Amino acid sequence: MKKVIMVLPLAILHLIGFAQVDVYPSHWWTGMKNSKLQLMIHSPNIGKGSTVTIKHSGVFIEKVNKVESPNYLFVDLNISSAAKPGSFKLQIQNQGKAVTLSYELKQRRLGNGQQFAQGVNSSDFVYLLMPDRFSNGDESNDRITGMKDQTLNRDSMYHRHGGDLQGVINHLDYLQQLGVTTVWMTPVLENDMPNRTEHGYAFTNHYKIEPRFGGETAYKSLSNALHKRGMKLVQDAVYNHVGIHHFTVVDPPMKDWLHQWPRFTRPNYKDQTLFDPYVAEIDRKQQADGWFTREMPDLNQSNPYVANYLIQHAIYSVEEFGVDGWRIDTYIYCDLDFMNRCNKALSDEFPKVTEFGEVWVTGTVNEAYFTRNNLTTSFKSNLKGVTDFQTLFQGILPALKDGNANSLYQTLSNDILYKNPMMNVIFLDNHDMTRFLSQVNEDEEKLKSAIAWLLTCRGIPQLYYGTEILMKGVSNPDGLVRSDFLGGWKEDKKNKFTEAGRTDKENEVHDWTMKLANFRKSSSAIKTGKMTQYVPQDGLYVYFRYDASQTVMCIMNTGKTNRSIDFTRYVERTKGFSKARSVTDSTEINLNDKVNMPSNKMWVLELIR
Amino acid sequence: MKKVIMVLPLAILHLIGFAQVDVYPSHWWTGMKNSKLQLMIHSPNIGKGSTVTIKHSGVFIEKVNKVESPNYLFVDLNISSAAKPGSFKLQIQNQGKAVTLSYELKQRRLGNGQQFAQGVNSSDFVYLLMPDRFSNGDESNDRITGMKDQTLNRDSMYHRHGGDLQGVINHLDYLQQLGVTTVWMTPVLENDMPNRTEHGYAFTNHYKIEPRFGGETAYKSLSNALHKRGMKLVQDAVYNHVGIHHFTVVDPPMKDWLHQWPRFTRPNYKDQTLFDPYVAEIDRKQQADGWFTREMPDLNQSNPYVANYLIQHAIYSVEEFGVDGWRIDTYIYCDLDFMNRCNKALSDEFPKVTEFGEVWVTGTVNEAYFTRNNLTTSFKSNLKGVTDFQTLFQGILPALKDGNANSLYQTLSNDILYKNPMMNVIFLDNHDMTRFLSQVNEDEEKLKSAIAWLLTCRGIPQLYYGTEILMKGVSNPDGLVRSDFLGGWKEDKKNKFTEAGRTDKENEVHDWTMKLANFRKSSSAIKTGKMTQYVPQDGLYVYFRYDASQTVMCIMNTGKTNRSIDFTRYVERTKGFSKARSVTDSTEINLNDKVNMPSNKMWVLELIR
Repeated sequence: MKKVIMVLPLAILHLIGFAQVDVYPSHWWTGMKNSKLQLMIHSPNIGKGSTVTIKHSGVFIEKVNKVESPNYLFVDLNISSAAKPGSFKLQIQNQGKAVTLSYELKQRRLGNGQQFAQGVNSSDFVYLLMPDRFSNGDESNDRITGMKDQTLNRDSMYHRHGGDLQGVINHLDYLQQLGVTTVWMTPVLENDMPNRTEHGYAFTNHYKIEPRFGGETAYKSLSNALHKRGMKLVQDAVYNHVGIHHFTVVDPPMKDWLHQWPRFTRPNYKDQTLFDPYVAEIDRKQQADGWFTREMPDLNQSNPYVANYLIQHAIYSVEEFGVDGWRIDTYIYCDLDFMNRCNKALSDEFPKVTEFGEVWVTGTVNEAYFTRNNLTTSFKSNLKGVTDFQTLFQGILPALKDGNANSLYQTLSNDILYKNPMMNVIFLDNHDMTRFLSQVNEDEEKLKSAIAWLLTCRGIPQLYYGTEILMKGVSNPDGLVRSDFLGGWKEDKKNKFTEAGRTDKENEVHDWTMKLANFRKSSSAIKTGKMTQYVPQDGLYVYFRYDASQTVMCIMNTGKTNRSIDFTRYVERTKGFSKARSVTDSTEINLNDKVNMPSNKMWVLELIR
Repeated sequence: MKKVIMVLPLAILHLIGFAQVDVYPSHWWTGMKNSKLQLMIHSPNIGKGSTVTIKHSGVFIEKVNKVESPNYLFVDLNISSAAKPGSFKLQIQNQGKAVTLSYELKQRRLGNGQQFAQGVNSSDFVYLLMPDRFSNGDESNDRITGMKDQTLNRDSMYHRHGGDLQGVINHLDYLQQLGVTTVWMTPVLENDMPNRTEHGYAFTNHYKIEPRFGGETAYKSLSNALHKRGMKLVQDAVYNHVGIHHFTVVDPPMKDWLHQWPRFTRPNYKDQTLFDPYVAEIDRKQQADGWFTREMPDLNQSNPYVANYLIQHAIYSVEEFGVDGWRIDTYIYCDLDFMNRCNKALSDEFPKVTEFGEVWVTGTVNEAYFTRNNLTTSFKSNLKGVTDFQTLFQGILPALKDGNANSLYQTLSNDILYKNPMMNVIFLDNHDMTRFLSQVNEDEEKLKSAIAWLLTCRGIPQLYYGTEILMKGVSNPDGLVRSDFLGGWKEDKKNKFTEAGRTDKENEVHDWTMKLANFRKSSSAIKTGKMTQYVPQDGLYVYFRYDASQTVMCIMNTGKTNRSIDFTRYVERTKGFSKARSVTDSTEINLNDKVNMPSNKMWVLELIR
């Protein structure tokens, strides 16, 4: 663990007789609502008969925990409200040897609740990108000496491509002009794994930002740049597992730090096991405790040391980097009681922060179970939002792929299940699935309808990078859903970030997205308004978003034939209005007229008096 | 309305100057918990300036209601607990004319809650039959002079075939030996319609049992015969609509007795409109108020006179005929507030009576919304049970038709939605849908698996007549799902009610059903026990039913290949047991052995210590 010197330079002041000593969290803050902090101290044999002392006004040791491995100490601190910011000495003595560490308590960020930890809500438009695949803003960090994965090969989907956080910073103008308010990146924590490091879901050190992305400095720069623009940052968190090269796997604090199996056992991928009243315990255990892959061992979240480690890291991340929203990976493989504790701990410190979980399930009940819902069940999730796979798989996809608008209508009717369906994150695709355009036979009109739906339906819209420039790709086996955004590398011959670099078709879809997203920015009806949907008729699906000051009518013709629209059917929502103006091309329609709605189109119309 | 003399002979004592006078309900009882009774009095111009008087100790007129039509009076009575059984005179005076009617208050049945109104629950096995198609026990009632439908033609699915209640009585031995505990017949009330009278869902007089089925006498005989055997009777109720020849349609009491439309309007068949938080009012109205067919106008259940008329008829039916369970047709087209009132009124008088609604929907949330559930919503249904279309459409059908056992597993996991899923009525088919055997390509092994599932899964099993003798038939367009049970007519050349009349295959499935149903009769584990289901593996689906005294293991191999069963996976349920005995053929299996489970089979095994 020599590299730790690089990670925690402030924490280590003095070593006598001990090898490298690592302390996690690397630092903390005064003025947190929760006065408790559990330090994990890691060094060979540090746990053998050591005593720990500190001297800092208002900071007390409550307990020193020795665990199975002699290489760990867990020190429970109480940082009272009287504690002042500053460093203090933490002395560990052991059979004549001693080490004195300096531990820093920082002052909390100014503007708490203003410029960071703002939460992400239905007024936002989230852009999901993979930092390795978006843009290479700093070629000096493409390979890092000493790290296990030394690939750099843009021809392979499973090697590194060199993208980084500076690349994102460089294109914030592009994103903001597109109408994006919030950036969600696949994880930015260190993944010092030998291969497949492009996705970022195999953490090897929670307290280190991936150096190939530019490390802590670049991450803070990006966070600051976003906030300066009034934009927001979502961090992608992984609680379920770590990379197999994580230091706690290489040198575990105790046997049950990880879920142990006699032989490698995957989850059964059945979220039902977490709520089924008829569940077999063996099935529930396999789902909750199985290892996601051989390279990603499963953390035992019911172990209180694991729980503290993960929860403190979540709080650390928000405070340290100014995170606004929190996306939680593989939620349905986690211990749900732990997740509730973790979500609550974040909310206690940052009341406005929002979390949404990756809840990749089939069935509205299944999805709702994992978030705040209207079900009377013994377990109640406190998760604020979920990735809404239902409005995708049983919603917009069958509507546009198969002309089955009823499925979308039905799925939304099940919103009675959610405490607040406006917190559901709706999307067309992501880094794990075939891109929408490839799902609909590369029909750009269908993609345009999908984007219009995404930006007008209830919930928080999330666009996967490149959808707006017609990026295609199937997930298996070629992995092309993770292709590079062309123009993000200086050697790219075309630059899709610019109008000139895009084809006419690409500009058409890009501008369609931009118009709708920017309209959305100032549309109270869409951002926070109510919704009315009408029973689809032969594939014609009509819904309204509205509030006291604005009404937006959305007409999607998923059918194969043109349709005559008679506005009298919609009088509940259209009364008081005389005309409708297209958001995308400003043409106007008289509501007393019958108008012809072409097949395979979507209109977004603002009603005018 | 001359025929009314036949219906209500006791009610009409004396007529001076008035035409025929009909009173509904035709009689009532003392000792009802609800002391209120609203009499509907129907006669030309009877409402014009009439006064009403009665003389009977403990019976009072609370109000005489005059309505839009002069041909009706609605008299609100209070029958106090002091009222004694007997007849009393009800005098109506009007401009010098007077009529004196005799109205009877009967004593209530003895054995209330014992021999009738028992409720139907998961200990029962329900047999659904169509009286016109099951057996003709009385040829004298095949055609009734004066009725509009004079067809009698067994070659047409849409003409009358002559079956009746005596035919059912004649085969109670057959049903009881099969293991049936409860008979549910499609409706037995008068359907004096010109055509399509075979189904019975177009009532023309609520207070008359269909004479072609044998009328009141035969219905009471059947009820008594069932109760004498310890069996139960379910009545099929229709609140949503009546036949267009119903007297209240021919001569409506008021304009809004029916839901009125400028032109014929069907429902949109979207149950979602009754709960969708985004519903358009125009859609909700069409679903709730549209006419089911041109021949079946929609009753306005929010009209208090309509509501009283329907609720009183429900109570009348249970008390008069000794009904045990109540099946409610087209539940999702009704006014749900009215339905709650109606269900409550029945339960108030008959606490053990159970109701289940026809809830033909897709989606577990949709289904659960209409019964007692674990949803926090502003409207809460009090309906005790539903026809469980989900375990059919998204359960046993995909499991056996497509080898998709996961779908069945998923559907059952959603039982968290139901307050009591044991009250769901599970089934393989009914009179409105293609028979199961025809759905699974006439594969008898699949039908056997389905029957074994039906008789072991949670809930109340319902078998559609003839399934046990391999009856086939698709619903559209030929209607052959309503074919006759061969042997039910004396001219039939084969008698499928007897072993000798059945083919080997038919006997195999009949005996399979009989063994399982009779095993079920004494199986506490199945009737009232718990359930554990295991994640299906390659189409192998295993579940247990168990309680403290019995464990039943059910293994369904929906896959295309044989499977080796290793019982160690199921140790949660098998521990303490050494062997398993097949319920259907008594062979025994040692639980320490691995056994070969053939493809496309189902085993039901009782575990032994």
